[in-house]
Amino acid sequence: MAVTLEELARRFLGRVQGDGAREIDGVATLTDAGPREIAFLANPRYQKHLAVTRAAAVILAPKDAEDFSGNALIVDNPHLCFAGVAALLHPDPGFSPGIHPSAVVAEDARVAASAWIGAQAVVEAGVTISDNVYIGPGCYIDRLATIEEGSRLVANVTVCQRCIVGKRCIIHPGAVIGSDGFGYVRDDVRWIKVPQLGRVVIGDDVEIGSNTTIDRGALEDTVLGDGVKLDNLIQIAHNVQIGEHTALAALAGVAGSTIIGKRCTFGGRAGIAGHLEIADDVHITGTSLVSGSIANAGTYSSAISAEEAGAWRRNAARLRQLDAMVRRLTELEQKVQRLIEGENLD
Amino acid sequence: MAVTLEELARRFLGRVQGDGAREIDGVATLTDAGPREIAFLANPRYQKHLAVTRAAAVILAPKDAEDFSGNALIVDNPHLCFAGVAALLHPDPGFSPGIHPSAVVAEDARVAASAWIGAQAVVEAGVTISDNVYIGPGCYIDRLATIEEGSRLVANVTVCQRCIVGKRCIIHPGAVIGSDGFGYVRDDVRWIKVPQLGRVVIGDDVEIGSNTTIDRGALEDTVLGDGVKLDNLIQIAHNVQIGEHTALAALAGVAGSTIIGKRCTFGGRAGIAGHLEIADDVHITGTSLVSGSIANAGTYSSAISAEEAGAWRRNAARLRQLDAMVRRLTELEQKVQRLIEGENLD
Amino acid sequence: MAVTLEELARRFLGRVQGDGAREIDGVATLTDAGPREIAFLANPRYQKHLAVTRAAAVILAPKDAEDFSGNALIVDNPHLCFAGVAALLHPDPGFSPGIHPSAVVAEDARVAASAWIGAQAVVEAGVTISDNVYIGPGCYIDRLATIEEGSRLVANVTVCQRCIVGKRCIIHPGAVIGSDGFGYVRDDVRWIKVPQLGRVVIGDDVEIGSNTTIDRGALEDTVLGDGVKLDNLIQIAHNVQIGEHTALAALAGVAGSTIIGKRCTFGGRAGIAGHLEIADDVHITGTSLVSGSIANAGTYSSAISAEEAGAWRRNAARLRQLDAMVRRLTELEQKVQRLIEGENLD
Repeated sequence: MAVTLEELARRFLGRVQGDGAREIDGVATLTDAGPREIAFLANPRYQKHLAVTRAAAVILAPKDAEDFSGNALIVDNPHLCFAGVAALLHPDPGFSPGIHPSAVVAEDARVAASAWIGAQAVVEAGVTISDNVYIGPGCYIDRLATIEEGSRLVANVTVCQRCIVGKRCIIHPGAVIGSDGFGYVRDDVRWIKVPQLGRVVIGDDVEIGSNTTIDRGALEDTVLGDGVKLDNLIQIAHNVQIGEHTALAALAGVAGSTIIGKRCTFGGRAGIAGHLEIADDVHITGTSLVSGSIANAGTYSSAISAEEAGAWRRNAARLRQLDAMVRRLTELEQKVQRLIEGENLD
Repeated sequence: MAVTLEELARRFLGRVQGDGAREIDGVATLTDAGPREIAFLANPRYQKHLAVTRAAAVILAPKDAEDFSGNALIVDNPHLCFAGVAALLHPDPGFSPGIHPSAVVAEDARVAASAWIGAQAVVEAGVTISDNVYIGPGCYIDRLATIEEGSRLVANVTVCQRCIVGKRCIIHPGAVIGSDGFGYVRDDVRWIKVPQLGRVVIGDDVEIGSNTTIDRGALEDTVLGDGVKLDNLIQIAHNVQIGEHTALAALAGVAGSTIIGKRCTFGGRAGIAGHLEIADDVHITGTSLVSGSIANAGTYSSAISAEEAGAWRRNAARLRQLDAMVRRLTELEQKVQRLIEGENLD
Repeated sequence: MAVTLEELARRFLGRVQGDGAREIDGVATLTDAGPREIAFLANPRYQKHLAVTRAAAVILAPKDAEDFSGNALIVDNPHLCFAGVAALLHPDPGFSPGIHPSAVVAEDARVAASAWIGAQAVVEAGVTISDNVYIGPGCYIDRLATIEEGSRLVANVTVCQRCIVGKRCIIHPGAVIGSDGFGYVRDDVRWIKVPQLGRVVIGDDVEIGSNTTIDRGALEDTVLGDGVKLDNLIQIAHNVQIGEHTALAALAGVAGSTIIGKRCTFGGRAGIAGHLEIADDVHITGTSLVSGSIANAGTYSSAISAEEAGAWRRNAARLRQLDAMVRRLTELEQKVQRLIEGENLD
């Protein structure tokens, strides 16, 4: 597929600088782009590459276009425009509908005629697979689960019984939706399992990364709002609720029954304790631990960056003296005050 | 399935308050329960819901029953009783024994007549699948592994060669039991793999969460005691031993050859270094790192909770001055002491 | 398979002490070894077991052999020698080439005659499976991917389209190679997906642990150098580059576009922020966070070890006063200095 620079400008509401008839059939970085590819500049630190790029054209913000003599597509948000151009020029491969002969689909499962069930997949009784859904190879959809229109389960995804995946979701390989929550009651020394009877209910336009796990609720549901984005290897425990358009980076974990607001972001390896409420528009830096509710929008952190190990060990050892240090400091302040005031301290 | 409140009281050694003939066919939360469902109150913070619940009955501790005019099942431990009632009213669906036609089972695998091998599963040579075992869709059981009576591998579980899963275990999707430990010797710059020849041996009544990984021992076995509970996305390295009834929450990791006692609990994202010994009844708070052996029961922590990022950054920067601060403090104490004692400091 | 001690000495360039004709057919620990098994001593703390071992022979360093009266294979690096002996005596089971009848292999996939495609595996169009490659049960190899000579995908591994796995790699169950990177642009409140068009390119002799995830690059590739070793449950984000012979332990995470040097090691649960450069021969202790580039070889840490929870809480609370403490300390130093200098402070 090839489009002209002019055509891109029309579709993405941009302005052409240079040769609008230039044909473009792919995207690439400034340094790798060939004469039929378009690149973009979002980060000023790559500005030096502008001078030497062989790209057919570059997507630029107005201020960066001034000094650029090559072909450009000028837009307010080059990165956003680039995402659209890339999706246009490199569309998902699509699929023909049907059921692969090696798939095992229960007789009473409802599979839309426009859907695809891939090789070695298993679809159990009572499942609903809606229009244009793609169930990739090796996926397992347990009883009574629903996958709504246009969602794509890439491969080897497990969706447990009665869970609901909304429209246009993407679920990457190895993700597990709806396994039992980690719920036990102690009976003397033994742990007695509390049946996990809720579901996982996932909104529309949600993306879930590889090997991420989302547990079903104990009684009520675990809920992901529309537009939520989860990276790889994330744990979402039972009864968690995540607000719309919140994004969590890899290896983050959210403990049970915590409610997270809308438009929050969690850096990689962030952790949130259970039974908390996190307001809308809260940002947690990577690695940080949230162990109390957060009522106000803002950025929160408890991350400590590595330093040379010897120096760190000396400092870390002092951490254990911190409380004592404060007391020593306070005592010293009092003594100095009395010295200043001329008292006899003995 | 429906039971009367009286019948529940008889089975769970409780006392009826109100209408013992009331029929109950499910469990629910206080706020969601309908007139044929039973709820429970374990957390005092939900007490306000008692007044308005539409539940057929509520499972209550004696002290909470006094002010409640509805039907109640009065027991010492409402949460434990609720777990039993939920399991009674919402039993696992069960399964008919057999081997799905799409499963691949080696001729010399021993599969009990009462067991089930699900769709697309693979069972290799020399495997033993005992009575009432459920091998879910897509599971892979490698050579000479043994799955003992009544265990349930939900779906897409991998059990590697020669590993043993005890009785009545539950293993959730994506878990990997018995992959090679991370064992290498350095030869100049290259890492030379040390063959991992041990097994994973899992006791009875163990539950293992989704996408959790348990590595086989290098020479001896990796061992999980009876009643151990592992949440999702946990790493158990080679040669680890975990004592009976110890529970680890999600994203926890235990490095190689560490021995953990009985009845311990590890919060989410907790980490334990290798070659340590952790006593019985040790509790590690979420996110904490254990880097030395722990000889005494108790609770241990190194977790730091997030605060507003600007304030945190100022404090975190000071961490690197901590050792210097202590030295400044000590010097100042000496100076003040000399001032107090009237010495000339110059 | 049995070999004499003499034969082992010849193969592994060691020296025999005692009976070179002794036959050996397996490896074991000092305490478990029977009369036909060889053990080794690498860690001085197991020296006491030397006196009582029943092993046919022990692999020892010269200095440890002096006081040992049993049979010994004396080498400079006993652990390295042991790895070789174990691989010799306990070889991988090997496989007969072919395609399991239950596997689904696209007509135009190129599968070497010497390769094996296991039960329930799926190999898509345009894939290249080279000589002596083992594709285990349940693996999924998406379009145009390449698996080079001698690599072993144990089971249930997913390799996404166009990714390249080098020679003699081992990939453990549940690993996902080449899922989409976590790349979005914000459009008002919504996250717009940026198509992930790069690949994952893995060098030779790489080992990748269970349920580890490696994302494909956004435009350029995610690259793992020769000899890289990744443990279980590791996240490698898009566009990361990892230098040769670098090893990461379990639950570590590397954020997008970070470039890691050669021969580095990362302890378990270590995290590296995105867009950093880490020099060769850098070692990061377990749990530590790296949030800035590291230009010099060395060991770096930000790990804090757990202490008794009550004491820890008191110290951790003081962390939030650290900046204030430094200011108090500085003020106090000034006051004391003025006292010493005899100034009137009022």
